[in-house]
Amino acid sequence: MILALAGGVGAARFLRGLVRVVDPTSVTAVVNTADDDRFHGLCVSPDLDTVTYTLAGAEHPEQGWGLADETFTVMDSLDRFGADTWFRLGDRDLATHLYRTRRLDEGATLTEVTAEITTAWGIATTILPMSDDRVATRVTVSRDGGRREVLAMQEWFVRERANPPVVAVEFAGAEAARPGPNVLALIAAADIVLVCPSNPVISIGPILAVPGIREALVARRDRVVGVSPIISGAPVKGPADRLMGPLGIEVSCVGVARTYAEFCGTLVIDAGDAGRAAEVNAAGVRAVVADTLMTDARVAAAVAQHTLDAVA
Amino acid sequence: MILALAGGVGAARFLRGLVRVVDPTSVTAVVNTADDDRFHGLCVSPDLDTVTYTLAGAEHPEQGWGLADETFTVMDSLDRFGADTWFRLGDRDLATHLYRTRRLDEGATLTEVTAEITTAWGIATTILPMSDDRVATRVTVSRDGGRREVLAMQEWFVRERANPPVVAVEFAGAEAARPGPNVLALIAAADIVLVCPSNPVISIGPILAVPGIREALVARRDRVVGVSPIISGAPVKGPADRLMGPLGIEVSCVGVARTYAEFCGTLVIDAGDAGRAAEVNAAGVRAVVADTLMTDARVAAAVAQHTLDAVA
Repeated sequence: MILALAGGVGAARFLRGLVRVVDPTSVTAVVNTADDDRFHGLCVSPDLDTVTYTLAGAEHPEQGWGLADETFTVMDSLDRFGADTWFRLGDRDLATHLYRTRRLDEGATLTEVTAEITTAWGIATTILPMSDDRVATRVTVSRDGGRREVLAMQEWFVRERANPPVVAVEFAGAEAARPGPNVLALIAAADIVLVCPSNPVISIGPILAVPGIREALVARRDRVVGVSPIISGAPVKGPADRLMGPLGIEVSCVGVARTYAEFCGTLVIDAGDAGRAAEVNAAGVRAVVADTLMTDARVAAAVAQHTLDAVA
Repeated sequence: MILALAGGVGAARFLRGLVRVVDPTSVTAVVNTADDDRFHGLCVSPDLDTVTYTLAGAEHPEQGWGLADETFTVMDSLDRFGADTWFRLGDRDLATHLYRTRRLDEGATLTEVTAEITTAWGIATTILPMSDDRVATRVTVSRDGGRREVLAMQEWFVRERANPPVVAVEFAGAEAARPGPNVLALIAAADIVLVCPSNPVISIGPILAVPGIREALVARRDRVVGVSPIISGAPVKGPADRLMGPLGIEVSCVGVARTYAEFCGTLVIDAGDAGRAAEVNAAGVRAVVADTLMTDARVAAAVAQHTLDAVA
């Protein structure tokens, strides 16, 4: 059994490759939910949905969120009411949020609803929220003149296009959150634990912040293998560089290695970063060099195979 | 100032005619909300929306609910989750329900939200819910074999196409409901009170069931004029016949007159029912005969003018 810690688009593409080289039913993805928020009154879980839609082969091919072939009739119609529509939800995507919200309001857990949604999409892989409790990433930014302001994750990332300089990140609610059902047991029982190529600060960071998960990973350190989301000093996609730097993490595979060293025995780094393998090793993490840029699902499968081989 | 008691499509068409012959800002419609319900977790107010969309000129031209030029992408996508989608909400219409639900969840009253929605649609006429409290029409039907079952209004009307025989109707919550803000004062102050051609049982009935409203109307009986929704023994649209008969109300303008006699001094009946004017008068209601079939907005304007003239 393979357990994977996952954020959004990078993780989703990696997992799509992984389920080409192993039995999809042998994989469980534990997904970040600290980006979850309410929009237009609906419960939106960006990373759960990105992983779900990608494994279903229904994801938008370029934009990194949402479904292919979307329309935005509901959003366009909401404009009439002066509603904030900077977080654009497509019409097909809205059905997911309507269903999730109603089920949560009925008392179902996020874990239960996620299972229903992934089953409805025909996904054989188990997708688990990191927690059924609410954890919310809050980004403190510096405005012109030095004034600080705390933003919700999507306000910073989507509404403000990740432009305001970040001075701090916190995961509100994490201290009181419990890992999702079975998450700790699955980490303990997994043959391999993968850390997908996701943002170390705001995708993997919240998962680690749920009490118990980091300790469970530390206990499996020799079976934990990560894939660096940073290639040649820049993230493949997303704003990792705008978060790692201000928080004192070098924007490189070495910075990732140092951040993960306590619980991650092996890190797959890109061939373009081969020259930094010695520094990764010096951080106490065994470096494995491979081509990691996932340009399509076939390449993602090769990356996944390299990653599995790294701890075989 | 003209106050109109209103249900759904019949009232909406009448009001569209009325605002052609009087200043739209002089009209206030008090609208039935006992058909309101939650669908897919969203607060839907069928009669408020039918009146709003019709006065905005945006209503579907035939079906009697919803907007013209609708798509149903969200509903079609909900089918994936096995959700009940017999109550079809269009994509443009959904924006209204999303906005209403979020505002109600934020603590706004239905009266406040309705004002926001009608303003957004550019409507000069004031549209008021009969009450901000929840009143729910419940229809007791007789199943094959005589078993009785209580259905929500839309379950009976939409899901079961008004087919199961009705044995009783109740308005759950009506006894504890309060009239919407200003409703009683507006009835007292109105120059004319109109009872739109709506279903007497489930459209006008719930309004009358809100404590205080019937008494306020009785006090203005000589200024209250109704329009019979029954022409030649049949409703123009909707299931009034399937409700009036079982409840002991003759399906005719005479039955309407007897039902309204306590608070309604004048009833406009169709020219086709001229032969029954004496029976209406015998019920204590002054009959005024006019062509009342509202085939288009121009004819509706003439019907409205006849109705105003009836108490001029």
